[in-house]
This record gives sequence, structure tokens and C-alpha cells, in this order.
Amino acid sequence: MNLKDYIAEVAHFPKEGISFKDITPVLQDPTAFKYAISKITAFAQGLGVEVVVGPEARGFLFGVPTALDLGVGFVPVRKPGKLPREVETAHYDLEYGTDSLCIHADAIKPGQKVLVVDDLLATGGTLTATIELIERLGGEVVGCAFLIELVGLPGREVLKGYNVMTLTQYEVNE
Amino acid sequence: MNLKDYIAEVAHFPKEGISFKDITPVLQDPTAFKYAISKITAFAQGLGVEVVVGPEARGFLFGVPTALDLGVGFVPVRKPGKLPREVETAHYDLEYGTDSLCIHADAIKPGQKVLVVDDLLATGGTLTATIELIERLGGEVVGCAFLIELVGLPGREVLKGYNVMTLTQYEVNE
Repeated sequence: MNLKDYIAEVAHFPKEGISFKDITPVLQDPTAFKYAISKITAFAQGLGVEVVVGPEARGFLFGVPTALDLGVGFVPVRKPGKLPREVETAHYDLEYGTDSLCIHADAIKPGQKVLVVDDLLATGGTLTATIELIERLGGEVVGCAFLIELVGLPGREVLKGYNVMTLTQYEVNE
Repeated sequence: MNLKDYIAEVAHFPKEGISFKDITPVLQDPTAFKYAISKITAFAQGLGVEVVVGPEARGFLFGVPTALDLGVGFVPVRKPGKLPREVETAHYDLEYGTDSLCIHADAIKPGQKVLVVDDLLATGGTLTATIELIERLGGEVVGCAFLIELVGLPGREVLKGYNVMTLTQYEVNE
């Protein structure tokens, strides 16, 4: 199965010049969706994953079924103001300005082996903040899995030293 | 298993006087999480569900594994500006002002039987908008499943006439 057959490229979204990768057709086809999750869980085999972390909101779509298939817990990383108990917060750069992500301070136990799952590896901003949160709580990031990699953006370099797996790759000409 | 053992009540969040129901402990315990999903899929048996719809972001957490277990597609309902192709948009009332939700215009085929899944049934505002979007596309809502029902808020009355199932109930004194 070629997952790219289920990823729609939408020109000029969210703005002029950007080719947005729309993953909703993957979600709508249970065979393609299960195939994508099976590839992520195959990657996770042997890594000793004890918990899966996924950033809001599209990280939930792929992180949750991965966690359930691996038989481990899922921890959401969310925008500020969404998680009700004590949180750790990390900041990351956007094209203009900064944004923040939070994790419940008791969500990861020191030494726990963590798999990070998200839909897209692009500049790596969201992922750097997510990894920072996990490591601040003492977790060990044993792998990072993505449905899509935008090759030519800094994400792969930013995650250098981590075990990174991407299911599809698209060239981006900046 | 009593799912309430995995739902944390957090006083005064997001504001004074509100007892927030925190579902993250359910997600972190794979046995509890799978149990919750199994109760939703049991409810769905016999309803002929062809697609599961879940509103952003917590509806993704429970809607996605339900869809995968039922072997049907998942369709996300999102805030404006998130879905890249042609959308239908519905508005709903908040305590102060209004908000909007969107669905891809081609996500539901006329006559398709739809199960709606979300974490919380409270005032029913999000759900009314979600159902409006599904029905505008010609879908038939055959069931609505929630992890939590806040009894005493208008949600149950707002969904009158629909087949509604909730896994836990909490009394709210307004």
C-alpha cells in the first residue's frame, strides 16, 4: 500500500505558496489507517516503549491507536489552558512569534521510555518542545514516528540524535 | 471496572465554581482506555455504523479507536481554518458569544449512518453543531456516545430524539 494515495495535496493552504498535506483521507479509510498504525507499531517493536506522547490535535489521531495497539498509556501534549492539573510548559518559535505547549507534570515517570507520534515532521518546532517536556519530566525518548516528513525543512536536523521514522516523504523547495 | 476511578475531578478549572472532569488518567491506563472503547463499540453494535465523527480535540481521543475497532472511517470536525478543502460550517452559542465548527463537505455521503463520539455531554452546544453538519451533508446520526454526562445541564434535552449513550454520569448543581 502506498500511503501517499491517501494524502491529499492542497495548494495554497493555509497560505499562498504552501502545499498542505491533508491526512483526512487516511482517517476515512480504515484499511489505510490501520496500515499506517501497523507501520508505526512495527517501528516501536524492540524499543521498550512504555508510553506514547502525541501533541494536540493531529498527534492524537495517530498517537492514540498506536498506544492502544502497543498496550501502553497515551499522554497528550496540549496548548496552554487545556490541561487542568499542574503542568510543565515549553516555548517554541513560529515563523512570527512563539507558541507554547504543556504536559501534565505527573504524566511521565523518571526513566520511562517514550515514543512520540505526530502527523507531520516539518520545521521540528512542535517536536522540540514536546521532547523538551518529556525530558524535563525525566522520560527517555526512544523513538519519534511521523506519517509525513517534509524533506528540505529543518525537522530531520533538529531531531538529530533521536531515532526518527517517517512513513512518507515529500520534497519541499524553499 | 468503574471508569470514574480514572476520571479526576479538578476543582475551579477552567474557572471558579467549575468542577472539571479530567479524562487524561483514562488515556494513561490502557486497560481502562480499552474498556471505555469496548463499551462504545458494544453500544454501536446493531446500529449499522458506517462512519464515526468526533469533534476536535478530545473527540479525536475516543472517536478514532472506536472507528478503528468498528472497521469504519473517522471524520474529524474541527475549528475554522484547520480543514484545507471545501467545508460546511455551523455556529453554536457559548456562554458569551458564539463559536464555529467545520467538516469537509465531501466527508459524509448522503444516507451514511454516523456515530458521533465525544468525551463530554454538557450543554450540548458542540454536539448540536456537529449533528447539524452531518445532517446537512445528508448523513443519518444513528447514535451519540460520550465518556461523561453532566446531568443537570441541557445536553440530554438538546439531543432528545437521538440515541444517546453515556459511560459515566455526574450531577451538576447549577
